[in-house]
Amino acid sequence: MSDHSATRIRIDYGNTLDALDSKALDAALGRVRDAQSVLQQRSGPGSEFLGWVDLPAQARDALQPVQDTAERIRSQADVLIVIGIGGSYLGARAVIEALRPPFDSAGTQVLYAGHHIDGGYLRGLMDACADRRVALNVISKSGTTTEPALAFRVLRQWMEERYGRQEAAARIYATTDAQRGALRRVADEEGYTTFVIPDDVGGRFSVLTPVGLLPIAASGIDVAALLDGAVAMRETALLDDADRNPALRYAQLRDALYRSGKHIEVLASFHPPLTYVAEWWKQLFGESEGKDGKGIFPAAVSNTTDLHSMGQYIQDGERRLFETFLFSESVGTDIEVPSAVEDTDGLNFLAGSRFAEVNADALRGTALAHHEGGVPNATILLPGITPASIGALLYFFETAVALGGYALGVNPFDQPGVEAYKRNMFALLRKPGFEETRERLLARLSGNESISG
Amino acid sequence: MSDHSATRIRIDYGNTLDALDSKALDAALGRVRDAQSVLQQRSGPGSEFLGWVDLPAQARDALQPVQDTAERIRSQADVLIVIGIGGSYLGARAVIEALRPPFDSAGTQVLYAGHHIDGGYLRGLMDACADRRVALNVISKSGTTTEPALAFRVLRQWMEERYGRQEAAARIYATTDAQRGALRRVADEEGYTTFVIPDDVGGRFSVLTPVGLLPIAASGIDVAALLDGAVAMRETALLDDADRNPALRYAQLRDALYRSGKHIEVLASFHPPLTYVAEWWKQLFGESEGKDGKGIFPAAVSNTTDLHSMGQYIQDGERRLFETFLFSESVGTDIEVPSAVEDTDGLNFLAGSRFAEVNADALRGTALAHHEGGVPNATILLPGITPASIGALLYFFETAVALGGYALGVNPFDQPGVEAYKRNMFALLRKPGFEETRERLLARLSGNESISG
Repeated sequence: MSDHSATRIRIDYGNTLDALDSKALDAALGRVRDAQSVLQQRSGPGSEFLGWVDLPAQARDALQPVQDTAERIRSQADVLIVIGIGGSYLGARAVIEALRPPFDSAGTQVLYAGHHIDGGYLRGLMDACADRRVALNVISKSGTTTEPALAFRVLRQWMEERYGRQEAAARIYATTDAQRGALRRVADEEGYTTFVIPDDVGGRFSVLTPVGLLPIAASGIDVAALLDGAVAMRETALLDDADRNPALRYAQLRDALYRSGKHIEVLASFHPPLTYVAEWWKQLFGESEGKDGKGIFPAAVSNTTDLHSMGQYIQDGERRLFETFLFSESVGTDIEVPSAVEDTDGLNFLAGSRFAEVNADALRGTALAHHEGGVPNATILLPGITPASIGALLYFFETAVALGGYALGVNPFDQPGVEAYKRNMFALLRKPGFEETRERLLARLSGNESISG
Repeated sequence: MSDHSATRIRIDYGNTLDALDSKALDAALGRVRDAQSVLQQRSGPGSEFLGWVDLPAQARDALQPVQDTAERIRSQADVLIVIGIGGSYLGARAVIEALRPPFDSAGTQVLYAGHHIDGGYLRGLMDACADRRVALNVISKSGTTTEPALAFRVLRQWMEERYGRQEAAARIYATTDAQRGALRRVADEEGYTTFVIPDDVGGRFSVLTPVGLLPIAASGIDVAALLDGAVAMRETALLDDADRNPALRYAQLRDALYRSGKHIEVLASFHPPLTYVAEWWKQLFGESEGKDGKGIFPAAVSNTTDLHSMGQYIQDGERRLFETFLFSESVGTDIEVPSAVEDTDGLNFLAGSRFAEVNADALRGTALAHHEGGVPNATILLPGITPASIGALLYFFETAVALGGYALGVNPFDQPGVEAYKRNMFALLRKPGFEETRERLLARLSGNESISG
């Protein structure tokens, strides 16, 4: 187990307090505490998808097969292509980009496919991998989701032409349903090594199942430490004292701010490697809360980059938003500001400071400036950007969104709105069975010809 | 000059019309036409920053030095490191990522620095470039903006240690003020090749000045065609007939939708290479309109990826948003969906289709589904993803935001809110001259100790 300090997440929320009166804060605390009871009693909507709650310790105990397979992938491949979309894509990518050093090309590199419909990308990916040893991890519960299924059709054929069917089968790993579905059938027929996506864990909560763990381990990250961090956060996230439970506090603040008229949350990381953690967060929060005409609109910025872009809007635009900073109190590699003989740029006053110190004052300065500009903000403080702290952060967010969804009165574990575009797309593509929808859509399209330019 | 069809941008806006009555549309058209007059007469606030209006043709005529220098960079360097932030970063990156093939490593590769404060990133960048020939393009009007100035301190020292001072000077290119500022002084002293950032073009409008053109040309993209596209769009964007001027139409729709209660615009590209075009768009629109407590909040998604993430919220969440799709009617490289002997995934009905066709139906299906879910949406149709069409798109957006800002009653060309965090950061970092602010901030910080977890 990792030590406590490596996973201790704190929230500084002083810059929200003048936007919220104590009545609003108390009411919000009541709602998220009620949500906590509903979650613990498994009595709310979507409770058939609460597998994520006890997942960290279970996954920790069952980690050996994932680690062994990851080791095999690392010995057989320079590149692991991960095919997946949504929760079968963002979790692994979030952790890998957070923890692999920038520009690092040592060991097995993870690349992604099946997360959009772009033939040029897939062609470029295959060309880039022509001279490198490749393995494939295809991730899909059903095996019929269009984007990953299309990519798998193309890449499976490419692997079989390149390696022969038998060797390709030894390089293809399927993460899918235990029994049912198209990918399960192919995997069993071809003899792929398989991992199971549990029935009781939704896509956006699946990063600590083999969906995320296998590619993360294959990229060389310590998944045991990642899970240890989540295990430690699970203990904290059970507490009903918001002073000691940052997930409860975060859910409370979000609930109160939303009801006070703040409809947009900007997650503002001060660490470029956390950009995909923010992407994962957007799916987790947007998909869990954005339904029934409700929900905070989740947006993300990467600072200080975006202080020179979205910074103007956040400082001075419509006052319908609040901000959540994401900041690590320590970083791994760092460098010092060098001294200059001639102080032309006027920065010698910083000579000898580490970049992380300058960045910390950029955070503090921003939090104060945005607060003064009318943007309530809280800061999530990570102890570091390590496997344990990232594991804790993932579980922290998962708990907070479950509490937030219940407090909002929605089912945080379904995503009915994701089907609408698929149905239309199938109909337009003449998928058998969608003929009636097709007629209806074509009628709408033909009455819809307003074009300018 | 490129032919007309290569730069013809159209807008399909049928899915906005039931959200807007004709009175609202007419009023909005009146406002953006008035804005057009103000822009043409140079009579509005910020008119000292209208250099971008006539820039395309001027830049086209003065392109030779940029092209010659780009050629020199391409012969001397495997990697060009571009140091810049905000408008000195996003424009070049948007065009380069849109037009360079994915995974392509031929020719000179462009990497970025000085766009955040991350020592680990800078260390990783230097390590990754250790065995490659490097050139540097430092872009800053003043030379004292903290992020690029810090990166330049580090990278200049590194270049001089590596190449010696004289050879380093032959590999460092400065894009800066014509006469004033710290970077101009260093560049003149050291004998760097320099390019000028015009006084009358703001950072977010500077992509077609040497700020953007030099790195874009160095990456091997045809900047003449890029400018030709902008020149062609300039003619279109002058027209006062919204049926023939997509920039006027886009500004009209945004104005009407905003005033009807749609406070968030989601720019939804269906082409992954356009991800940084959306980032550039966020700065252009957020910084131009987000002030005086007003402005549409600009957000971006990349589809179909984000249909499996933000898609749920957009379909079913709060109805305060509208959507602008960005879609190209043709793509370069493409592949076909292969047929499978056993149709396990049920996708044989798509066999023989090109990915671009499937993607087009994903767009159409999404536009209809989101419209049905209560999200008015318009589609910007590009003729292709080529230098000419991207040049046209950039100028299209620049014109639309100028019209939109004036119609909203703000100065679209200033960014007063960007200074607030800098002032605070300098004070916290003990920059000489900021002592008073420092005292005030420290007092606020000490009274602000609400921490949970």
